[in-house]
Amino acid sequence: MRIALDAMGSDRAPTIEVEGAIGALRTLPGSFTLVLVGDRERIEAELARHPGASRERIEIVHAPSRIEMGEPPAQAIRRKPDSSIVVGLSLQKQGEVDAFISAGSTGAVMAGSLVILRPLPGVDRPAIGTVLPTRNGQTLLIDAGANVDTRPSHLLQFAHLGSIYARDLMGVENPRVGLLNIGEEPEKGDERSVEAYGLLAASPSLNFVGNVEGRGIIEEECDVLVCDGFAGNVLLKFYESVAAFFVDLVRAEVEATSATLDLSRIAQILDYTEYGGAPLLGVNGVTIICHGGSPPRAIVAAIRVAVQAVENHMVQHIQNRLARLTAPQGQS
Amino acid sequence: MRIALDAMGSDRAPTIEVEGAIGALRTLPGSFTLVLVGDRERIEAELARHPGASRERIEIVHAPSRIEMGEPPAQAIRRKPDSSIVVGLSLQKQGEVDAFISAGSTGAVMAGSLVILRPLPGVDRPAIGTVLPTRNGQTLLIDAGANVDTRPSHLLQFAHLGSIYARDLMGVENPRVGLLNIGEEPEKGDERSVEAYGLLAASPSLNFVGNVEGRGIIEEECDVLVCDGFAGNVLLKFYESVAAFFVDLVRAEVEATSATLDLSRIAQILDYTEYGGAPLLGVNGVTIICHGGSPPRAIVAAIRVAVQAVENHMVQHIQNRLARLTAPQGQS
Repeated sequence: MRIALDAMGSDRAPTIEVEGAIGALRTLPGSFTLVLVGDRERIEAELARHPGASRERIEIVHAPSRIEMGEPPAQAIRRKPDSSIVVGLSLQKQGEVDAFISAGSTGAVMAGSLVILRPLPGVDRPAIGTVLPTRNGQTLLIDAGANVDTRPSHLLQFAHLGSIYARDLMGVENPRVGLLNIGEEPEKGDERSVEAYGLLAASPSLNFVGNVEGRGIIEEECDVLVCDGFAGNVLLKFYESVAAFFVDLVRAEVEATSATLDLSRIAQILDYTEYGGAPLLGVNGVTIICHGGSPPRAIVAAIRVAVQAVENHMVQHIQNRLARLTAPQGQS
Repeated sequence: MRIALDAMGSDRAPTIEVEGAIGALRTLPGSFTLVLVGDRERIEAELARHPGASRERIEIVHAPSRIEMGEPPAQAIRRKPDSSIVVGLSLQKQGEVDAFISAGSTGAVMAGSLVILRPLPGVDRPAIGTVLPTRNGQTLLIDAGANVDTRPSHLLQFAHLGSIYARDLMGVENPRVGLLNIGEEPEKGDERSVEAYGLLAASPSLNFVGNVEGRGIIEEECDVLVCDGFAGNVLLKFYESVAAFFVDLVRAEVEATSATLDLSRIAQILDYTEYGGAPLLGVNGVTIICHGGSPPRAIVAAIRVAVQAVENHMVQHIQNRLARLTAPQGQS
């Protein structure tokens, strides 16, 4: 198995990516090879700073340019064919690698995945899944911001994409799918939600548990939380900032009272980076998106997710599910 | 000044309401009278349990029936003219009281306010404002769930309603208004947000600071956060549950390590009940909605908010602002 890693993506590229790659090869099981995509000279220079690390399962594919955060994604993909994102995704399209990971511009990774890998048949809008830490485990939020103005049929597709991800990558046998809404009853919420409820409830291959309110997320009322990318993105970013706020609150209290309390475990629970990158689900390939501010351990986690997705044939599973979903009535 | 309090609203009515009323009369400044609306016998029985409390500024208006949580709001308002909600709102309509507070069915209080008090001219959709605790203060979220499928013009009205509330009730001189969105640039977000951005930016009487992302709320990028009731309700309920989750996390850690840490201050910061009820803004009157699970101190806080709203002529200020807003071009 070969995993491509955009070495030029993060805010501190390629330092973070190289450190993450070395860490992944040292700590993760499996015999995958990492293909670092980016400026060969800079990557070599970074690797030279880790003289003890084995180079055996590391390759470099040169990509001289970089898509910057502010660039219009679709345009950048067209104009920079030699960028690490376009080169990395093209390697996957050509079958040279099995997955692509990037901490670069989310918009560009998404646009590139759509243009180069293409959506799977039956998927109108690939969506970003993100794992949220909850009271006793985690919940997959889909969509975390790839799509706004989604239609109910898109939300149904998100439910199937998320279900398979939760099963294949999170190890949940029969994932409970919830629809983010502002009330529990089927008729609650906006027009989109009411219609989506009907579609989800009518889909026999989904373990649909109904509407889940904002307060039900942390209480793990579902394993897969389906929502429009607007609400998903707001929730995700809000959660991150609240977590940081809360840790600061406790820290200040600890300092003020000279109490001794180890906050590392709490900080870790709330540390999204432990949960690795966010998959772009619904494209014909494995694309994992990381925060621009990712530390090396987030890169390691993303590599683990990518390896698992390939090992577990996630894309094939999604394809099979959606083929059944879009098959003419009576054949399913 | 006379404030009507629905004595039959909360999950533990009328115990909570009577305790809150007595607490408010004891602790709040001003010479307001509280009109307890509900089952006279039960209210009297509750009052009898506080023999030391003065009855001087407490009146009772009998309302024999109660609208239950599950009842369809609009129907319940029509069918139960002798319910505490309908009687209390009618007292305000008739000028017998200046404000109405209820911890009963939010839907019924809203429906009743619309039918009995009526929306102010220029308001298509009255909205619920809720104060969120932030890093160094608080932010008014509007709409917290009264409306879904809002149009951009509704969001503009929410901005004005929220601005006046923030000024009159929260003491913010020139409130910064933000639009909840998934990116900072004007063109980011769903269609509604893009159009609303244009309307907000073009309104000279608003101190519009642009889009605010999920992470900007806690960081107090604005004093008034404008959003559709779907996102607002999800955010609000999510925040409450996350706060509870965090407090539990820290408490478990404190117990596990036998550390001594007083969590009361933290719990208080995150305790919405300290912030009192949520105003329904845009109706021709003062309506304050409380949680069904409110403790007495939340009732006290709601009474304080109601008193301030009346003292500061909030409704008149909203009316003036909206009259200017809807005046023909050139006259404003």
